[in-house]
Amino acid sequence: MSPLRSMFSGGRLASLIDDHSLLAAMLRFEAGLAIAQAGCGVIDASAARVIAAVCERLAAQPQALDDALDTGSLGEAARHAGTLAIPFVARLTRAVAGEDARAAGFVHLGATSQDVVDTATMLQARAAAAALDDELLQLGDALAALAQAHRATPITGRTLLQAAVPVSFGWKAAGWLDQLSRARSLLARTVDEQAVLQFGGAAGTLASLGDAAPRVARALASELSLPLPATSWHSARDRIARIGTELAMTTGACARIGRDVSLMMQTEVGEVFEPAAEGRGGSSAMPHKRNPVGSMLALEAALRTPSLAATLMGSLVSEHERGLGSWQHAAFVLADLFAAAASAAGAMLEVVRGLRVDTRAMHDNLARGAGFVHAEKISHALSASLGREAAQARVAQACQRAARDGIALRQALAADPVVGQTLDAARLDSLFDPSENLQAAAMMLDAVLAQWQASRLERRPGG
Amino acid sequence: MSPLRSMFSGGRLASLIDDHSLLAAMLRFEAGLAIAQAGCGVIDASAARVIAAVCERLAAQPQALDDALDTGSLGEAARHAGTLAIPFVARLTRAVAGEDARAAGFVHLGATSQDVVDTATMLQARAAAAALDDELLQLGDALAALAQAHRATPITGRTLLQAAVPVSFGWKAAGWLDQLSRARSLLARTVDEQAVLQFGGAAGTLASLGDAAPRVARALASELSLPLPATSWHSARDRIARIGTELAMTTGACARIGRDVSLMMQTEVGEVFEPAAEGRGGSSAMPHKRNPVGSMLALEAALRTPSLAATLMGSLVSEHERGLGSWQHAAFVLADLFAAAASAAGAMLEVVRGLRVDTRAMHDNLARGAGFVHAEKISHALSASLGREAAQARVAQACQRAARDGIALRQALAADPVVGQTLDAARLDSLFDPSENLQAAAMMLDAVLAQWQASRLERRPGG
Amino acid sequence: MSPLRSMFSGGRLASLIDDHSLLAAMLRFEAGLAIAQAGCGVIDASAARVIAAVCERLAAQPQALDDALDTGSLGEAARHAGTLAIPFVARLTRAVAGEDARAAGFVHLGATSQDVVDTATMLQARAAAAALDDELLQLGDALAALAQAHRATPITGRTLLQAAVPVSFGWKAAGWLDQLSRARSLLARTVDEQAVLQFGGAAGTLASLGDAAPRVARALASELSLPLPATSWHSARDRIARIGTELAMTTGACARIGRDVSLMMQTEVGEVFEPAAEGRGGSSAMPHKRNPVGSMLALEAALRTPSLAATLMGSLVSEHERGLGSWQHAAFVLADLFAAAASAAGAMLEVVRGLRVDTRAMHDNLARGAGFVHAEKISHALSASLGREAAQARVAQACQRAARDGIALRQALAADPVVGQTLDAARLDSLFDPSENLQAAAMMLDAVLAQWQASRLERRPGG
Amino acid sequence: MSPLRSMFSGGRLASLIDDHSLLAAMLRFEAGLAIAQAGCGVIDASAARVIAAVCERLAAQPQALDDALDTGSLGEAARHAGTLAIPFVARLTRAVAGEDARAAGFVHLGATSQDVVDTATMLQARAAAAALDDELLQLGDALAALAQAHRATPITGRTLLQAAVPVSFGWKAAGWLDQLSRARSLLARTVDEQAVLQFGGAAGTLASLGDAAPRVARALASELSLPLPATSWHSARDRIARIGTELAMTTGACARIGRDVSLMMQTEVGEVFEPAAEGRGGSSAMPHKRNPVGSMLALEAALRTPSLAATLMGSLVSEHERGLGSWQHAAFVLADLFAAAASAAGAMLEVVRGLRVDTRAMHDNLARGAGFVHAEKISHALSASLGREAAQARVAQACQRAARDGIALRQALAADPVVGQTLDAARLDSLFDPSENLQAAAMMLDAVLAQWQASRLERRPGG
Repeated sequence: MSPLRSMFSGGRLASLIDDHSLLAAMLRFEAGLAIAQAGCGVIDASAARVIAAVCERLAAQPQALDDALDTGSLGEAARHAGTLAIPFVARLTRAVAGEDARAAGFVHLGATSQDVVDTATMLQARAAAAALDDELLQLGDALAALAQAHRATPITGRTLLQAAVPVSFGWKAAGWLDQLSRARSLLARTVDEQAVLQFGGAAGTLASLGDAAPRVARALASELSLPLPATSWHSARDRIARIGTELAMTTGACARIGRDVSLMMQTEVGEVFEPAAEGRGGSSAMPHKRNPVGSMLALEAALRTPSLAATLMGSLVSEHERGLGSWQHAAFVLADLFAAAASAAGAMLEVVRGLRVDTRAMHDNLARGAGFVHAEKISHALSASLGREAAQARVAQACQRAARDGIALRQALAADPVVGQTLDAARLDSLFDPSENLQAAAMMLDAVLAQWQASRLERRPGG
Repeated sequence: MSPLRSMFSGGRLASLIDDHSLLAAMLRFEAGLAIAQAGCGVIDASAARVIAAVCERLAAQPQALDDALDTGSLGEAARHAGTLAIPFVARLTRAVAGEDARAAGFVHLGATSQDVVDTATMLQARAAAAALDDELLQLGDALAALAQAHRATPITGRTLLQAAVPVSFGWKAAGWLDQLSRARSLLARTVDEQAVLQFGGAAGTLASLGDAAPRVARALASELSLPLPATSWHSARDRIARIGTELAMTTGACARIGRDVSLMMQTEVGEVFEPAAEGRGGSSAMPHKRNPVGSMLALEAALRTPSLAATLMGSLVSEHERGLGSWQHAAFVLADLFAAAASAAGAMLEVVRGLRVDTRAMHDNLARGAGFVHAEKISHALSASLGREAAQARVAQACQRAARDGIALRQALAADPVVGQTLDAARLDSLFDPSENLQAAAMMLDAVLAQWQASRLERRPGG
Repeated sequence: MSPLRSMFSGGRLASLIDDHSLLAAMLRFEAGLAIAQAGCGVIDASAARVIAAVCERLAAQPQALDDALDTGSLGEAARHAGTLAIPFVARLTRAVAGEDARAAGFVHLGATSQDVVDTATMLQARAAAAALDDELLQLGDALAALAQAHRATPITGRTLLQAAVPVSFGWKAAGWLDQLSRARSLLARTVDEQAVLQFGGAAGTLASLGDAAPRVARALASELSLPLPATSWHSARDRIARIGTELAMTTGACARIGRDVSLMMQTEVGEVFEPAAEGRGGSSAMPHKRNPVGSMLALEAALRTPSLAATLMGSLVSEHERGLGSWQHAAFVLADLFAAAASAAGAMLEVVRGLRVDTRAMHDNLARGAGFVHAEKISHALSASLGREAAQARVAQACQRAARDGIALRQALAADPVVGQTLDAARLDSLFDPSENLQAAAMMLDAVLAQWQASRLERRPGG
Repeated sequence: MSPLRSMFSGGRLASLIDDHSLLAAMLRFEAGLAIAQAGCGVIDASAARVIAAVCERLAAQPQALDDALDTGSLGEAARHAGTLAIPFVARLTRAVAGEDARAAGFVHLGATSQDVVDTATMLQARAAAAALDDELLQLGDALAALAQAHRATPITGRTLLQAAVPVSFGWKAAGWLDQLSRARSLLARTVDEQAVLQFGGAAGTLASLGDAAPRVARALASELSLPLPATSWHSARDRIARIGTELAMTTGACARIGRDVSLMMQTEVGEVFEPAAEGRGGSSAMPHKRNPVGSMLALEAALRTPSLAATLMGSLVSEHERGLGSWQHAAFVLADLFAAAASAAGAMLEVVRGLRVDTRAMHDNLARGAGFVHAEKISHALSASLGREAAQARVAQACQRAARDGIALRQALAADPVVGQTLDAARLDSLFDPSENLQAAAMMLDAVLAQWQASRLERRPGG
């Protein structure tokens, strides 16, 4: 990630998906492979110890890693070789040889380039997913608190960007939580199921390991704490693509909140405000501006993630036992998806936690337009006697009269004798109360909160 | 689906996702709503019976449906209204009024446009997913049979489109099955979890139904055999998007088989052939041509599905209580994804079932190139004594000598005394046997077959 | 296009991109080919006359076409054959044979499937582009009129969805026009340059026509009024992809207007309104609602077109002399792009033409927020003496004071002696005039209008 | 670009699109703005000279730039502010203040964040496009040389991955060149037309500059050697999207060559080979492997670019006078597209220049399959007498007989008396000559070469 691009990346998570973390995960693979093979009697135990020690040392010390692998030139060497694994293994072998020339002969034995790259990608994915899950958990909790706090706060429900009927702000927040909760649970499940060991050797059959192959594979999976799948899957790119699509779903769940917040924060609406902080969301030209920058960050991420996920889905059409061009970029595309999701989640966590809610403005906006937001309830109340179409026609007429004469809808309805015969004044008044008829909304809100609480306790990815 | 476009659609499934099936599902919603409301005492039971009877009659009789709803003009009317539901409900109301004017007053009561459209989309999705599952089950069985039949058939393993090492054709087919099996199971699970009732009324809170709302919602879900979610979800588009991405995964799993089959069917490779039939895969200009048209159909579908799924993922950024433009096309985009997946699955089912396998050609292709496909195994066998790098260098040298002098690799290795000291002639001969070292492959194959058999018994979507 | 899907398609244009129009274009190709070959002495002139006559008759009479080609079963037959062209040519040949058995022997001679399908796609593209251009011309004219009419109407300029500084509504409309004008011109140019004859025979070399090939190609191009490219291009899918991306640009240009209009039409903003008409933009649940359905139509189209264009761009990676799966759907994907662009353009034409503008609301919205929209101008006016940063700090302070004390920014500034020393009261007053400093905007507006007028006169696509 | 990701990026071009180059371009904007404003009498000339000198010094000295702007923390600061421009301008202002406190007051005067970011993006685009054009020019020349050298080299034409009819390898290369030439010309034209100055101030109207606005805009455009558009375009994202789609077209044109080369390099085909070099395209597991890594690099790029371009097309739907989330990532997405195109072009330049062509293998592959590749010519030759359908049936029969009896097609045809009556033995022999009937191909080849030569002389982007 370049320094400038970190603008669109989640802070803490960035270090789990960068170059260094990928190389460290590749080192973990090579260390695990040596130990597993030694455990199965395939290679010498002392050689394996040396390999593992070198790998662990490099993985733990960024400077040593950069020196030993000459990170700065790895990309170019990988371009020349056609795979990152070749120069990586060559340089690691040299580093091991520096300690023990014989041990160097057993580095990467029986594995192929894609084994180390795909497995490292999955190790990265587990670590990144666990960190992202922390953010999502906090975001979910913040949304749950918001929903709870505003369960009885009336606000204009808006459909197709037009005022529709009153809802509660808490129910609205519960809707955000419902989607986010689904995203969190399914991302965790997907990573648990799909981030598994890749180990197949030259073409996927582990041929060179002979009889020892199944034992080595089991030992390696155990060493890396990764599930062992039924078969090598290097040509089956759906596992990575599925993690990618769930990251797009997570990003989208955050961005939907951002869209709503930014619309409610419009100067003419003014119902909620992103948290203020020195220098946050300012304008280089307008000193008074307070921009919804958290929402912006979530939205920009969500505009990129569907396409990134499409790239991964496009890679499913592979060739034979190792595709040509279809999988080579997967680690980077997946990292971009994690970065985008973390950026969106981090931004919205800050927004939701610090959200300033103006319930007065919500109330005032409900009162606009002569009370038209209550039309649907009135129409429904009339339907029982008049039937749906007649009731709607009656209310529509009253709306038109109110708009034409500049009077309140309540007043226009009072003038209609048919309405008067059906609904008495007290019932009519109650229908103009925005808190009226939010029982079902409250039940939905409670159901979402209960579901969230239950899901909070579930096992976390990578855990 | 236009007649010409049915070229790229699965035959049987097409009728489950077309205009008529969408309207029939909308009618099921309206019937279910009336019955549910009558059951909860919200509307008159006899009115509900009339509504339900009209809906059922229209849904069952295409001609009656076209007449009553004037299908030909529905699209234009929907364009004018901004939603299909408005003219649909208006015309249905007229049809009900033709039977019972009073009952007409209770059509669609308390529901909103998106309730009927989203729920109908989910009903369609369940039916289409069940039909698609049938195809996938048959395709999986055909792949399992192929894997079983060729568990010991050697074939060239190819990486980056180059001959690499010998594998078995059965193991290769098991790899196809493994991915397809995952696609089938996860599509079924996704539809089961995500295809749920949408019922929220004007803005999602079911406000107009008052206290009866939860009961009506439960009754409606039961009536339609759809799960009832914690809250209305019309602004949370991830449910539909997730079904869409799984359809893209399914299509990709089929297309990967198509890519491999078409590459193996190349004139210069000639290892497998799509089934022949009068007029199948001919050329308008070349009488001798036999084209891999099944593979083509799977590939064309897989080139469209990632983008279609991206469109659905892009719709996650919605606005407030009903988005503007983000969800309106969802039923059609999802139908296109179902059509593509069914086209790919149907095409590959025909291909795999009728696949002609030329094991002789597989054998001959393995023998090309002086036996280089055995180099990796030999190199690995030498590694135990020489270390990985030295062993690889030795074998590389022998390969170069063989290429330069036009001799077999076996012969070139025989001339190297170091090799001779490490591996005796019998061991060297055995390493040139393509069936050697396929034990791990056989175990993978068996594990995949076992997993498939287990998953076959699982509950099916919509079932 | 299914009846329901016509909801998202442009009315008039739909008939230019449907099944029938594709078949008619294919017939035009076959007629042109026969005539061209006869003119070059390759086939008998009387046979060519018969072929051309049959083609022309079928193309002109939908019922005859359906009968002769059995349209209803063409899709399935094409699926079996792997290409639409094979059953099409077979059935056309039968139809010709019905008139003259000998002539039937010369149908489609020397051409291949892709020649007729790709060329027909290009003929369709030219006709559809011409029709779309008509809509875009009218939309541009409507935007030009709107810009002209409101060149001096102040409105709040909004950045990141926050009120920023005053602009004029005319200038805003000119910005819409500028982008639309670019879309119109570049779509026309792209179609002119890229919609060319495809004629290559079996593999693209026109081998079977021998010496006559170049003459036949020239004659065919002339017959179809299509440019003749340097070489056959059936494996170079960029031509179609470029038309596709320009259609996405056109759709996006329309949808941007739709986004702005729908935001300005929000209940709390109320500055513009889509035209009202009986049943237009109503709600099935809320009788008072007036939804921005034109904007919705443009927005839904723009959410699909980038992905559709991506599918076409993805088809650039083809194989050898005819790709497997990459191009076969091109005619349909391009048709979907034309339909989406026409839907968006048609919807926005209706919206812009009938747009109701509430200049009073624009004025009122400008007055919100204590006059903060004027802060940037004041800050700039102070910069000359104080420097940018000090000026901004000063104005920011005044904004804070105004917000805190509930007074107008004008008043808060008056209380600051530094401001008083720099700007006298009259100058300060003038800075609070929203029409102040819109000279540059007016010049931009005029430049856009002039560019539009110039581009109106350019040659039109297909013309 | 991270070190590892440089694997998928073009070497020389990388430095034109990285963080540093973006900041340098932003500095050029600020320098140009100060000078333009001084020239128009808006700010003090000596202040402008100081600003320009600081900007130029920082742009020229990477270390000074990193120090002054604290690049490492810029991303985080930009995330906090919501735009890169705010911390950039603040830090630049500090740097200028270090030289001349008064001059610092005039930095960025009258401009807004998006002015500097969008204009810098366009400056980067021009420089990157010019560098990419160099590569494309060389690649085109290499393709032209290949086409010329092999104008008479017969090779199997392949359709749908099946041998079809003979073509020449030179003609095939000319087809690659034709598409590449179009990509090169249209990318250059698009950059020339669309990479223009963005200068609008707070909301796009340049309000704060008053009467001086048009003069300053003209002077700034001239200072930066960028065209001045009719109006500010910061909300019209089509300009950047169009450059992006052309980069996808360029990448696709390269990847198509890569697909064909990799298919022809398959072990079983062996017609061409990517250049060999120590360590190039090796395998970590198989010492004999020579992988098509250049083709792989082009293909991986082409799998990402349609989606990246789709992201840019998706940004067309913006909001009002500055979008929320839609444009903020544009510079980075465009940089990724340039990197991908440069990676693909650089990889294929190396491949085409060093391509090893095995004409013997081409000849041998043509001879496979009993001579079926000649069937179409024979069928056409018979058509003149027998009609197309009868001729095709006759040849198909001969093909079947040849396949059944294991004889050559020539022999099977000799046994058919009807064929003998129509074509004498000499004519039949000539039809089995693969060079026969390639006249039209040669003319196409020459036309493509002529077009290339003409286009080489055209003005270059950024030039």
